[in-house]
Amino acid sequence: MKRYFLLMLTLWVSLIAFAQTGHKPAIAIHGGAGTILKENMSATMEAEYRAKLEEALTAGYEILETGGNSLDAVVAAIQVMEESPLFNAGKGAVFTNNEKNELDAAIMDGKTRLAGTVAGITTVKSPVAAARAVMEKSPHVMMIGQGAEQFAKEQGLEIVDPSYFYTKKRYDQLQKIKETEKQQLDHSNEQGSLLPQFPDQKFGTVGAVAVDQEGNLAAATSTGGMTNKRYGRVGDVPIIGAGTYADNNTCAVSATGHGEYFIRSVVAYDISALMKYKNMNLKEAAEEVVLKKLVDFGGDGGVISIDRAGNIAMPFNTSGMYRGSIDTQGKLYIGIYKEE
Amino acid sequence: MKRYFLLMLTLWVSLIAFAQTGHKPAIAIHGGAGTILKENMSATMEAEYRAKLEEALTAGYEILETGGNSLDAVVAAIQVMEESPLFNAGKGAVFTNNEKNELDAAIMDGKTRLAGTVAGITTVKSPVAAARAVMEKSPHVMMIGQGAEQFAKEQGLEIVDPSYFYTKKRYDQLQKIKETEKQQLDHSNEQGSLLPQFPDQKFGTVGAVAVDQEGNLAAATSTGGMTNKRYGRVGDVPIIGAGTYADNNTCAVSATGHGEYFIRSVVAYDISALMKYKNMNLKEAAEEVVLKKLVDFGGDGGVISIDRAGNIAMPFNTSGMYRGSIDTQGKLYIGIYKEE
Repeated sequence: MKRYFLLMLTLWVSLIAFAQTGHKPAIAIHGGAGTILKENMSATMEAEYRAKLEEALTAGYEILETGGNSLDAVVAAIQVMEESPLFNAGKGAVFTNNEKNELDAAIMDGKTRLAGTVAGITTVKSPVAAARAVMEKSPHVMMIGQGAEQFAKEQGLEIVDPSYFYTKKRYDQLQKIKETEKQQLDHSNEQGSLLPQFPDQKFGTVGAVAVDQEGNLAAATSTGGMTNKRYGRVGDVPIIGAGTYADNNTCAVSATGHGEYFIRSVVAYDISALMKYKNMNLKEAAEEVVLKKLVDFGGDGGVISIDRAGNIAMPFNTSGMYRGSIDTQGKLYIGIYKEE
Repeated sequence: MKRYFLLMLTLWVSLIAFAQTGHKPAIAIHGGAGTILKENMSATMEAEYRAKLEEALTAGYEILETGGNSLDAVVAAIQVMEESPLFNAGKGAVFTNNEKNELDAAIMDGKTRLAGTVAGITTVKSPVAAARAVMEKSPHVMMIGQGAEQFAKEQGLEIVDPSYFYTKKRYDQLQKIKETEKQQLDHSNEQGSLLPQFPDQKFGTVGAVAVDQEGNLAAATSTGGMTNKRYGRVGDVPIIGAGTYADNNTCAVSATGHGEYFIRSVVAYDISALMKYKNMNLKEAAEEVVLKKLVDFGGDGGVISIDRAGNIAMPFNTSGMYRGSIDTQGKLYIGIYKEE
């Protein structure tokens, strides 16, 4: 009888402990999808990418592990990548046609479904921090251009000279594309000037999704957009429902790819809708959208996604996607190419 | 026998005629939802709104009736409202905090699911025409600010001095709100400066949806945004999936209301998703989103929506919405208040 009582007590205490924490944390990140082939990658470069992805994951996971929330975790992971010239976000962002770096970012809180986004900003060191300030310190969701910059400044975010975002590699990329474009124009119709140019097809956007110990989901994305972009073009990243979405009832999603197709397909929300309305699980829903619907529609790219139970799905329909995760068992995974 | 033969021939010819045109055209428009009460409206003002809504509907319907396409029809209907100072779009747009008119617009083609949007533009006479140019003359979906203006100019669209959008009524509205805000600030915390002010709760965005004789759907929306808006705030209008969406397989939707809630709820695409994934009809899906989900979430506003068969649903959860339609029978309907 006494033994039975002790057993019940132990079970009861475990149950309470589980109810308090409830969820094992997990995180997934991406650093862009595209034509990424092993034969074009040096061993040094590959090692640099893997190390930086691991650093970003660890930065986010440490927050989750010590009871921090998923919003802090996705921001921490993204800021590691924003500060690295390896990725097309923050420092290392691609150049516009008129040789500027115009940055977009978004964040969404799965618990409240509050969201914040910025587009076309050039002076805020961490675009994802600007998006978070819009979400938390204003009644708005989206701010653009100089207005968004002024807001970020008033909120005390770090402001940098636009030259902070310059990297020689990205600048040379732009010059090469402009030269190619000029040659194409000489042999093409005048509409050619409006066609997007993707000579290397590495989109390079960064993103993170996470679930914390409270079971709250968050998603965030940050990008420099498209090399050689003109006319204040904005892609899917700051479009809630397209490049970024989070809802505790379904999933958190961050996308990377050919933004125009992702906007027109409402990619991130579509994954959530398939879970909610068709009872698909995360993997089924993410694969349906990325590997079937987007492929039929002609949209190259991928997503990272996570649900409340910590399941992770990271489908992509390109040859590679910089990606990684630390799952509910604490297991680290880093991948670049398709087969790994 | 001869009579029977003639009857069959007549039926056959009718069938061929029906197969060629296939669809009876229809159109619906809105001029904004909000606190619109009969007791606050003069008879003259009400007559002006009704006349302008009818003019916009007729402009769109004439195009559809003579075999024109749904994109031309929604643009024609919206341009009538953009040019009228009665609505918060084009001329008559509300003022930002720093006394400018910053305009947003979007259009989507249900056949191809191509889309075009502009945000934060100040010099293009017809913002919906700018959105259409982005869709048809560029590989992009969204352009913002001066980049979008430069593109519109290069495409030969009519450029106006920003003062074209000025109306005394809207300017006085801004001054009144600023005065109220100043008084509130004197008695409130400093966060108050970021709270949105809706003293009259008439959002005033305009939109149109249509089905043409080919059965192709289109949706478009145009707005001046929120009175007293700051920091380059952008609402749901130019967010594909939130304020504007069209897909021949489901429906075309244009929304009007408190944009932040509409973005976070992915309103327009959610109606489409409920039709596609839950087999709801247009009315069920539109009402589920506007009268249930948005109400639970706290989002004021409404939508106009149409499907390929020409069914129209125009639910709103506010006291009024300027709206109207010409259905597949050619029947004209105009409404402002809830009960009509």
